[in-house]
Amino acid sequence: MVSFINIPKGSDFSIYNIPFGIFRFENKTAACTRIGDTIIDLDLCQQHGVFEGINLPVGIFNRPFLNDFIRLGKPITNQVRIRLQEAAQIGNTLDIVSNAHSDLLIDADKVDMLLPIVIGDYTDFYSSREHATNVGMMFRDPANALLPNWLHLPVGYHGRSSSIVVSGTDIKRPSGQIMPPGADTPVFSKTKRLDFELEMAFVIGKETKLGTSIEISDAEDYIFGVMLFNDWSARDIQRWEYVPLGPFLAKNFASTVSPWIVTLEALEPFRVNGPVQETEVLPYLQYTGARSYDIHLSVALSNDKNTKKTISESNFKYMYWNMCQQLAHHTVNGCNVRVGDLLASGTISGPTPDSLGSMLEITWNGTKPVVMPDNTDRTFIEDGDTVSMKGWCENENIRIGFGPCTGTIYRD
Amino acid sequence: MVSFINIPKGSDFSIYNIPFGIFRFENKTAACTRIGDTIIDLDLCQQHGVFEGINLPVGIFNRPFLNDFIRLGKPITNQVRIRLQEAAQIGNTLDIVSNAHSDLLIDADKVDMLLPIVIGDYTDFYSSREHATNVGMMFRDPANALLPNWLHLPVGYHGRSSSIVVSGTDIKRPSGQIMPPGADTPVFSKTKRLDFELEMAFVIGKETKLGTSIEISDAEDYIFGVMLFNDWSARDIQRWEYVPLGPFLAKNFASTVSPWIVTLEALEPFRVNGPVQETEVLPYLQYTGARSYDIHLSVALSNDKNTKKTISESNFKYMYWNMCQQLAHHTVNGCNVRVGDLLASGTISGPTPDSLGSMLEITWNGTKPVVMPDNTDRTFIEDGDTVSMKGWCENENIRIGFGPCTGTIYRD
Repeated sequence: MVSFINIPKGSDFSIYNIPFGIFRFENKTAACTRIGDTIIDLDLCQQHGVFEGINLPVGIFNRPFLNDFIRLGKPITNQVRIRLQEAAQIGNTLDIVSNAHSDLLIDADKVDMLLPIVIGDYTDFYSSREHATNVGMMFRDPANALLPNWLHLPVGYHGRSSSIVVSGTDIKRPSGQIMPPGADTPVFSKTKRLDFELEMAFVIGKETKLGTSIEISDAEDYIFGVMLFNDWSARDIQRWEYVPLGPFLAKNFASTVSPWIVTLEALEPFRVNGPVQETEVLPYLQYTGARSYDIHLSVALSNDKNTKKTISESNFKYMYWNMCQQLAHHTVNGCNVRVGDLLASGTISGPTPDSLGSMLEITWNGTKPVVMPDNTDRTFIEDGDTVSMKGWCENENIRIGFGPCTGTIYRD
Repeated sequence: MVSFINIPKGSDFSIYNIPFGIFRFENKTAACTRIGDTIIDLDLCQQHGVFEGINLPVGIFNRPFLNDFIRLGKPITNQVRIRLQEAAQIGNTLDIVSNAHSDLLIDADKVDMLLPIVIGDYTDFYSSREHATNVGMMFRDPANALLPNWLHLPVGYHGRSSSIVVSGTDIKRPSGQIMPPGADTPVFSKTKRLDFELEMAFVIGKETKLGTSIEISDAEDYIFGVMLFNDWSARDIQRWEYVPLGPFLAKNFASTVSPWIVTLEALEPFRVNGPVQETEVLPYLQYTGARSYDIHLSVALSNDKNTKKTISESNFKYMYWNMCQQLAHHTVNGCNVRVGDLLASGTISGPTPDSLGSMLEITWNGTKPVVMPDNTDRTFIEDGDTVSMKGWCENENIRIGFGPCTGTIYRD
């Protein structure tokens, strides 16, 4: 497929991607996709007949969120994606229409990308065996790092949706109660152990009714697409508050998502087998076929002097529990899901020291600092630091990526 | 105040209450209040000038949720409540208007009451010292039943908003993974230890921005009103899944709320001091004045033979941590709140054996069954059982109540 739109080498936005997002430009907020460095206004596309013959409600893209579009279902949303791929070929519809309506295409660096969905409930899993093992070794018993339930079910918990922000939003260093080592009463303080967590999150595309469950073999029908996710964490607040009901203020001050939802269909060429689960799981968690995806991930840390260091190179395929298992588990008790719900993977850590998904693990609880290019040390994230995550899939013919998932820490 | 509407003795809906809800009758869904056994259609009230002079958007009540009304702010919503109290006096506006427009008033037993708000995030606290102590005694160390953080902060965690349903909705017994005693692999089963939790929940009435906190002295400005809440729980699923990240499928299959939001202003005459907090708390949690409310609570259990037994009589005033402390804590890290967010108290247990807020405590983990009027035993909730919660405030002059919070368990 060759587009009339220029696609720089290494772009996240090849014609094989066609992710969905929400842009703001001048006074307009609407749905868009991106090819190369060009934003395509889907609302104008619809007005000018690019989607002719697809059963789309009038104005479906002229909204500040994608939920209503996603709710139309994959038979419709996939047609839109394929139509955009066709129409973006040299000489095809989009080429012709955009020549007549130059406002259809916008330079990517002129727009603001917004949070693309109204998120209903947000759930965070804990599905990397390496991450759970590392945490267990640090804080519990190295010989029994994994808790008894971990190999039997994808452990998860509910998080906060109000504080999920789009890439590029600055993040304020949170304050809270901390119990200093050796003290017997807590103090109130800015967190001293601010961390990131490299995660991916998937967006629910089809609702269920309360009391019904999603069979694991049907789970992909309910997954619209995937985003990068940074589950910012304050380790000192977490340590004091989290027993017995789990993380709360240590996590809910902010989470960052990438602005683009990459569809499962775009990821199809990168489907791979996940880790073998040698502990047999209950039938509702047993799956067939390749249910993981080969998505390269990297995390860079930079500070206000613009020194930048890659501190993790990982891959989504390392996850022990896959998205289908997570969704089957989440609904096996009859819990309902809604379009726009977000389910995150939990920290993605790989098997090697350069593939760990949090500062907690990279610096082994602060004992092995990262040396930055300007010779400063990092045990956790400092004020003015920027954490930038990237994700991409690549084979000989195709490259698709997720766009940035970036946040900078400030102190007020 | 004497209304032209008949108010049966002992009604939850005296003229001092004026709660807000959403009704459905024939083809209409809109906001309402209730006096005695009469539903008052607030949309028709607006159309017929009852709210003349109050700055209300046209059609604000003609919606299937109260969020937009609540978002107008207390200066407006309080005017509406006071106007309704005035207008409902004999010979006043509502009397006159309802004589001309008989569809303004509807028999309460003819309408369906719906979930009155779109709930953004739902948070559950764990704020009853007696409950936390009982659980700690049963499952941890009786000599150190409270965990070290408990007296320093109101422990809380995020719950699921999609599965919160209104009183009267039947609840399906959930299935999930359970580790049988003595086994070494989990089984998949319907829960055998289904429980209720007697709670109250408050509704956020004013949003905050991410990165800002609510001072404890301002917290009441952000609380629109209060509802009864049943946090259904599956104890066997909970026990296996909850380490280390807290309850998940054990709770998110359903929670039940009462249909009416009783405003903080209606509760004002029942303000009381809460328990003395002898452990000094950090300044952001220190409050002045009476911040608790004397709200009588009761729980009845009945089965399909219509035998009914009161199994708990408690009071909201027993809560160790009050709503202002919960809200100040929730936002101290900059976590933002949105109109319609729901914050529940956690199980409300009192100091006496007849005032416990869950079957877990009442039967002491199943060891002391409740004997029902038909001589059957209950350790937990059985299929066909109905759990009915009531809440009310009463002094010599005034009685206000919350309406029912009821759910019946079925098995498919």
